[in-house]
Amino acid sequence: MPAIEHFWAVVPAGGSGTRLWPLSRSDSPKFLHDLTGSGRSLLQETADRLAPLAGDRLLVVTGERHRDRVVEQLPEVPADRVVGEPSPRDSMAAIGLAAAILERLDPDAVMGSFAADHVVRDPAALERAVTVAAEVARDGWLVTIGIEPRQPSTAFGYLRQGGELDEHAGAYVVEEFVEKPGAELARSYVGSGDYRWNAGMFVVRPTVLLDLLASWHPDLAAGLRQIAAEPGRLDDVWSTLTRIAIDHAVAEPAAAEGRVATVPADLGWDDIGDFHSLAAVLGGDDLRVLGDPADVLAEESTGLVVPRSGRLVALVGVDDVVVVDTPDAVLVTTRDRAQDVKALVDRLRDAGRADLS
Amino acid sequence: MPAIEHFWAVVPAGGSGTRLWPLSRSDSPKFLHDLTGSGRSLLQETADRLAPLAGDRLLVVTGERHRDRVVEQLPEVPADRVVGEPSPRDSMAAIGLAAAILERLDPDAVMGSFAADHVVRDPAALERAVTVAAEVARDGWLVTIGIEPRQPSTAFGYLRQGGELDEHAGAYVVEEFVEKPGAELARSYVGSGDYRWNAGMFVVRPTVLLDLLASWHPDLAAGLRQIAAEPGRLDDVWSTLTRIAIDHAVAEPAAAEGRVATVPADLGWDDIGDFHSLAAVLGGDDLRVLGDPADVLAEESTGLVVPRSGRLVALVGVDDVVVVDTPDAVLVTTRDRAQDVKALVDRLRDAGRADLS
Repeated sequence: MPAIEHFWAVVPAGGSGTRLWPLSRSDSPKFLHDLTGSGRSLLQETADRLAPLAGDRLLVVTGERHRDRVVEQLPEVPADRVVGEPSPRDSMAAIGLAAAILERLDPDAVMGSFAADHVVRDPAALERAVTVAAEVARDGWLVTIGIEPRQPSTAFGYLRQGGELDEHAGAYVVEEFVEKPGAELARSYVGSGDYRWNAGMFVVRPTVLLDLLASWHPDLAAGLRQIAAEPGRLDDVWSTLTRIAIDHAVAEPAAAEGRVATVPADLGWDDIGDFHSLAAVLGGDDLRVLGDPADVLAEESTGLVVPRSGRLVALVGVDDVVVVDTPDAVLVTTRDRAQDVKALVDRLRDAGRADLS
Repeated sequence: MPAIEHFWAVVPAGGSGTRLWPLSRSDSPKFLHDLTGSGRSLLQETADRLAPLAGDRLLVVTGERHRDRVVEQLPEVPADRVVGEPSPRDSMAAIGLAAAILERLDPDAVMGSFAADHVVRDPAALERAVTVAAEVARDGWLVTIGIEPRQPSTAFGYLRQGGELDEHAGAYVVEEFVEKPGAELARSYVGSGDYRWNAGMFVVRPTVLLDLLASWHPDLAAGLRQIAAEPGRLDDVWSTLTRIAIDHAVAEPAAAEGRVATVPADLGWDDIGDFHSLAAVLGGDDLRVLGDPADVLAEESTGLVVPRSGRLVALVGVDDVVVVDTPDAVLVTTRDRAQDVKALVDRLRDAGRADLS
């Protein structure tokens, strides 16, 4: 399959992955790490699976402090296609800046935005879905890939899928986006068959996105277009931009106006939010090792070990344990408590050990 | 209290403490480590508490490979009072060699043998008991300190205490030594009030010990006396000596002949066999740290952490966990499974990682 004409892949590479500490750090976030044992970082895997869709039309938006490592990890991407944000201003500013740049660069562009730290086990399914989504987007829709839910997760937002579009088989109107639900509501969503996970994968014409944004946040849209027109003003304009997520800024209000479509797909998608979901993604044996198995010696133990210091990690009789061993810190928790790692990192910062966070 | 005249403290410093891996290693055994948080190793604490009894009359018998570190840890002990064994030949050879040396050095000697890796929380009680034991020993008895059992332990051997000696208040005949019992038997021992733990603390005149040994193991006694007479023959004679524990070689048969007495005492004694008993010895809070508390960050966790690498050890929601962090290996287990660490070390050796064992 050749790349989609005028299709640009935008990769916002942000977020620190606090719940994956001490593997992920504020100065070495999740997307820079190999979390699947493939030998490629999540960012590299993202670029790899977008190449068949976009060819060399890839634009990465990342924090200025991570820009050098992103450039290093993606030698095939020209350095001027890796945009550095002076400070974190949430996803709307990051994706909107890419849209403003592309709007000037390629008037026929359709862009697709894909987070740098997600896992997609079935890249062919992604290619099929994005191909349909790009066609729908050309007609002026804001299109999101709707992930077929595999279980009633309470960790993701959902979207409610309406009727199929007349002009586009396989694409449907989005009736609304809903926030992360409780367990009971999540079960009813999944049971109804009408809901999909919102993975934040938006396919849209850059101008459509910015014009939608301008309806609700005119200053933000204008600021982004100003930076694209005068890149030298990035630093002073950026700091004035509203911090808001793309879901709240555009996707939710646009859905309310019937401007959003979805292409449902089963991608084997995951966002690896914590070590529990990392263990699930790795699958396999009762004791999963993300690293060199020779660095682990286990006796009657299950769970996940991430050996990253070259030292031996030895386990005796521990169940569903999580051990993450790095050169300056070792974490011991359980899969059940993996989401509470965030509280630990907060305490670390409070304790003046930001050097480790 | 002045030192007991002609009383010599003998400290056999052997055993690797496999169940305390990775803290204790074959090339850095248990007795060289601070396991109480005192800042002194178990060996140093042993020497410290024997000084009031023996003055400077201390003799250490240790493996030749550990001799330099023993000398380094005990600068107050003249180097010729630290005897190096060419190879491990069990406790009878170690203690018997000390006896053979002392028999020639001081014909009026009474020796007391105390393992280098035990904990005694009440050294004053030890002093009182040994003072009585030394008087009894002068009358030709083999005397053992009988530890008041604090719980029906299945980890220690016991001795059955008989009638009080006519000439020595506080000393009793030992009717027999018994091996480590099962749980039910241990409860009946402790319930009866007639049994004491055998901690292997023997007080005896060197000649009495060697003559008793000669009754059952004449070659071993002769070999030890030969080495004491001709120290240059240590290497060739040592390798011919019978490997046997002092309990089997002398204490058990001598008790059967009514030659053994005991002085019961409540010393706050422990042998810290594994991380479970180490946690118990440390007592205190729900999460015990043997090391710098600043190296540990814990969220809703209990158990024992031994931070010895300078790295941060972070725990989230783990109960009764044991984490031992060293520069080349980290162990994660539970207090319940602490005794199974030995199996892990066996596997480590089988796996060709003797460098870590």
